Amino acid sequence: MGVAIIGGTGEEGFGLAVRLGRAGVEVVIGSRVHEKGEAAAQKARDIAGADAPIRGTSNDAATAGSDVVLVTVPFAGQAEIYRSIRDHVRPDAVVCDATSPLATAVGRPAWQVVTPWEGSAAEQAKAILPSGVRMVSGFHTVSAEALHEFDQPLEGDVLLCGGDAGAKAAIGALVERMPNLRWVDAGPLSMARVLERLTALMISVNRAYGTREAGIRMVGRDAWNRPPEKA
Amino acid sequence: MGVAIIGGTGEEGFGLAVRLGRAGVEVVIGSRVHEKGEAAAQKARDIAGADAPIRGTSNDAATAGSDVVLVTVPFAGQAEIYRSIRDHVRPDAVVCDATSPLATAVGRPAWQVVTPWEGSAAEQAKAILPSGVRMVSGFHTVSAEALHEFDQPLEGDVLLCGGDAGAKAAIGALVERMPNLRWVDAGPLSMARVLERLTALMISVNRAYGTREAGIRMVGRDAWNRPPEKA
Repeated sequence: MGVAIIGGTGEEGFGLAVRLGRAGVEVVIGSRVHEKGEAAAQKARDIAGADAPIRGTSNDAATAGSDVVLVTVPFAGQAEIYRSIRDHVRPDAVVCDATSPLATAVGRPAWQVVTPWEGSAAEQAKAILPSGVRMVSGFHTVSAEALHEFDQPLEGDVLLCGGDAGAKAAIGALVERMPNLRWVDAGPLSMARVLERLTALMISVNRAYGTREAGIRMVGRDAWNRPPEKA
Repeated sequence: MGVAIIGGTGEEGFGLAVRLGRAGVEVVIGSRVHEKGEAAAQKARDIAGADAPIRGTSNDAATAGSDVVLVTVPFAGQAEIYRSIRDHVRPDAVVCDATSPLATAVGRPAWQVVTPWEGSAAEQAKAILPSGVRMVSGFHTVSAEALHEFDQPLEGDVLLCGGDAGAKAAIGALVERMPNLRWVDAGPLSMARVLERLTALMISVNRAYGTREAGIRMVGRDAWNRPPEKA
């Protein structure tokens, strides 16, 4: 299964592109400008290995060519990006939004958030995209700094939420192509109202401890290796 | 250091009373009715051991007699409880609020939340209490069910936030009296706007997996055994 990464030239998206490509996932890095997408893909292959299946192109072309689209862009530009790809998304695509509505979008600190009208950035994205698109939200606690330590495996869990169980499982399968990572079903898409704020929490913890790589792992019963029972 | 537990007859508060008392912390269980507080303390000693320093009394007396007050009550009754103890809180007390504004308070599911006017239940509590009180917020990801498995150590971290570094450290020291638990400084009190929602997230994850004991642990760098650098 291939994946388009919209915002793949940014820190989070680029880090995921390298790690997924290195794991053998076909990755297409999207950028506003085709040439920038190509250049980022070259840079990603330089890290992941020359035969890593990472290509680069425009956001529009990347979106049109993929069944799975991962969007990793800052909140300030998120709505504009979704409007720009709306007419290119395949009708039954799985779109995973990784945006956090950090208050940096309005000139306030990154450990604060704003509240989008729809409740979360992911629900805002869903409101912009065609109704058939299967929306997932996730990756909010995956530190960009940790992603870029390419010689280290990642730590922690990737919490995903969304209304379509198959779409969550598809993104979860991508997550688990990356060594050491596990995905967790956090419930319906509205749970993005909680998950997105975790980025601000990670930043606040990093600030308290002078670290850069805070993340979270779920603990609980031995039941954790079971698949989700409900969507 | 002793601690009053307001709402200590409820599941979360009673579980903490047993575990803290068993660790040798002087605990005073508060209840609206003195006799109910006493009965809960007897029940707690039956579990923790007859010589565990656990007493019970009214909320008012428990509050007046303690430098540290832990409040574990449902959101629907939280404001009323704080109004009732306001005149009894010591001027420089440390008050740790563990409330989550779950939507159950208004007849909606426990994996949804409402937003208190002040932004969080802890900030609502602070607005009710005298201004000198040092407010901390925490314990939102400590499962009541896990607490009540008294023969098992707890798993995960206890995230605390608040504006007073000493107050956070005091609650953190209580946390670490319980075997296997670690506390994490999550930043200023306003971070309760994120922490409190984690209870809804834990409930949503439990719902997805048919579990009852989801919790979280922070991951990150080796730096995790350092004390916080900032308040």
